[in-house]
Amino acid sequence: MSERPDIARLARDASRPLASLSTAMKNAVLEEIAIELIAHAPEILEANAQDLEAARQSEVEPAKLRRLELTEASLARLANGLRQVVALPDPVGQITEERTVPSGLKVRRVRVPLGVIMMIYEARPGVTVDAFALCFKAGNACILKGGREAARSNAALVSLVHRVLDRHGLDRAALTFVPLFDEGELKSLLQRSDSIDLVIPRGGERLIRFVAANSTIPTLNHAKGVCHIVVDESADQAAAIEVCRNSKTSAPATCNAAECILVHERIASEFLPKLEDALVAAGVEIRADSDALPRMKHARLAEDADFGREFLDLIVAIKVVSDVAGAIFHINRFGSRHTEVILSASQESINAFHAGVDASCVIVNASTRFNDGFELGLGAEIGISTSKLHAYGPMGLEDLTTRRFEVSGNFQTR
Amino acid sequence: MSERPDIARLARDASRPLASLSTAMKNAVLEEIAIELIAHAPEILEANAQDLEAARQSEVEPAKLRRLELTEASLARLANGLRQVVALPDPVGQITEERTVPSGLKVRRVRVPLGVIMMIYEARPGVTVDAFALCFKAGNACILKGGREAARSNAALVSLVHRVLDRHGLDRAALTFVPLFDEGELKSLLQRSDSIDLVIPRGGERLIRFVAANSTIPTLNHAKGVCHIVVDESADQAAAIEVCRNSKTSAPATCNAAECILVHERIASEFLPKLEDALVAAGVEIRADSDALPRMKHARLAEDADFGREFLDLIVAIKVVSDVAGAIFHINRFGSRHTEVILSASQESINAFHAGVDASCVIVNASTRFNDGFELGLGAEIGISTSKLHAYGPMGLEDLTTRRFEVSGNFQTR
Repeated sequence: MSERPDIARLARDASRPLASLSTAMKNAVLEEIAIELIAHAPEILEANAQDLEAARQSEVEPAKLRRLELTEASLARLANGLRQVVALPDPVGQITEERTVPSGLKVRRVRVPLGVIMMIYEARPGVTVDAFALCFKAGNACILKGGREAARSNAALVSLVHRVLDRHGLDRAALTFVPLFDEGELKSLLQRSDSIDLVIPRGGERLIRFVAANSTIPTLNHAKGVCHIVVDESADQAAAIEVCRNSKTSAPATCNAAECILVHERIASEFLPKLEDALVAAGVEIRADSDALPRMKHARLAEDADFGREFLDLIVAIKVVSDVAGAIFHINRFGSRHTEVILSASQESINAFHAGVDASCVIVNASTRFNDGFELGLGAEIGISTSKLHAYGPMGLEDLTTRRFEVSGNFQTR
Repeated sequence: MSERPDIARLARDASRPLASLSTAMKNAVLEEIAIELIAHAPEILEANAQDLEAARQSEVEPAKLRRLELTEASLARLANGLRQVVALPDPVGQITEERTVPSGLKVRRVRVPLGVIMMIYEARPGVTVDAFALCFKAGNACILKGGREAARSNAALVSLVHRVLDRHGLDRAALTFVPLFDEGELKSLLQRSDSIDLVIPRGGERLIRFVAANSTIPTLNHAKGVCHIVVDESADQAAAIEVCRNSKTSAPATCNAAECILVHERIASEFLPKLEDALVAAGVEIRADSDALPRMKHARLAEDADFGREFLDLIVAIKVVSDVAGAIFHINRFGSRHTEVILSASQESINAFHAGVDASCVIVNASTRFNDGFELGLGAEIGISTSKLHAYGPMGLEDLTTRRFEVSGNFQTR
């Protein structure tokens, strides 16, 4: 058996020239990948069909099968996503501050790529293309570790990207895809802070705990979303019901879906039956605390563990709170710092909510589902960070860069 | 023995009200601490004298004794530093982006405190006051772990801060000082990512490795500075000698002192003897590579380990390089991403240096010593980060905050 290549070092070596690649060149590469995705759709879909077949045989759960599946439509969306990244301004080289300090030095803070970004994710093969595009546009090399179920799909996609890199005379190590490998190898990569600048684990709590326990590389967690909606006594109730239904049901398996609704006790008797009707009609199972339960017909009593739980399904926890302060207390105990919503007409309640709640995105009078890079105007996102350092909330292109100081003088000494 | 208090949780609890403290209140507290530092100078200096006496008896090295010592003058500087922090704009609540997105939502990115910041440092007791001031002004609670040699000095300073907090009705857990404790306790605190948002280890490589290996909390390293100066063939040689001398000798024990000078071979024979005269006159020991050695009279041959070494002393490594590309290669191999300087009149060389060198601060034609928060216009610094995430280079007040999204709508759904 031959010596394995040092992929961390190769990615580091590839990252230096990427840092000064022109915007035009980066856009040309991404545009060409978009074209090739459509031109080579048949072979990508064939590889994906093999992955799907193997997954079905090993009785992979239906939700995972859906995430694994590629279609002509999803390839078209991927190509469209690439063109959106092309359209985004290049963050590299942006001057974010500029001043002349008393010593006469000219000081600039300039955006530069992070260098090498490693991302660990699961079944969805489209992430391979999305993540490469964002890392590359921000001047970074990337090391991607996708799920084993998508091995053939990912191989087809990565080979397509490599062919385009070849044609432009660029180092294939701009995208290193790590196929199936064991925990020991993953652990040793997670110790390579000499060559890897950032790790983004996108997956379940187990993956995030594994990375936290084993990595010496800075990490941005894309962790769970236990998102709450607080329905204040002053809320417009009809509108509140729509927002609750949308937050729970429009995409229940996403991290910005609502998992718990906290209702002010003054409106509980009036509001809960209407809320229940709307949710039950949408197929939602309700787990209610002992105050909410008697006000509903189809709910069952929540267990303790239903609060602070990410159901990722058509299930919601409902609790009556005595006031906004009680809601804040609950959120700070059970929330995951992801997305917290208050529905209220009272500026006082809204101010208290802003002051009391610690979350990457605090939303007043709208659905939890808006905590999303595209919806918030970042253009595209590589994940939603629930870490506070560097990026808190949806991470866009800019968050894949850092800022350095560039200083120019006239032989000043100190 | 009674149960130890859960200091991480107490700091977390204290951090929530700090996040919405008014700027006026924060400034009043800091101003009062400045006044008290001078009013209570005698008892602080008495405690410090006891620390110094104990340190002398346990034969602590002279450099450490100097860092441990407080004087009336250093207390006046600390008070002055507090007033500088008072004068800085409050980052909390700053709106850094504001837009209305197509859905009609109003989206803001707003600076909020990180929450709880833990800092681990060594002998210098003044850091206790400086670090508290910056964390507090940015709305954070802090957990400080200072060196054991400064135990009595730190106890006096912390008690002073606590008395001022008491007078303003603020929670003493805004500043938790961790006295002497064992490795096991430090390890368990470093696992408290539930309550601590950031760890800043400021100290030797051993401390930084210990934190990296044991912490699940995001960390900003204030690591070593192996700073280089490249003297290009086009550099003004007289000015270059002044910059080299200043970079090496003005504060040799600091992380932004130069440790290695790389000289273009075309000027080596002319430049090195003049450089040597200036450095030797300033008491500097020179360790030269085999190309540089024959051009100097008092240098000794460098060992391999002298390159990439942080001497923190009046010692410098000197090496001849064939061109700027050779210098960049050396820096990327041996540098620590801290401060890298080029002295050159050639825009081409300067551009190549900017493109090729990866460091938090790239300086053209000035001393390495300018990589400092105050000199670069940040107002004050809590350290110089050699991590790329969140803060890269000197960390000011702003870097002790994060940005969250605050979204306001009219019952939009998605």
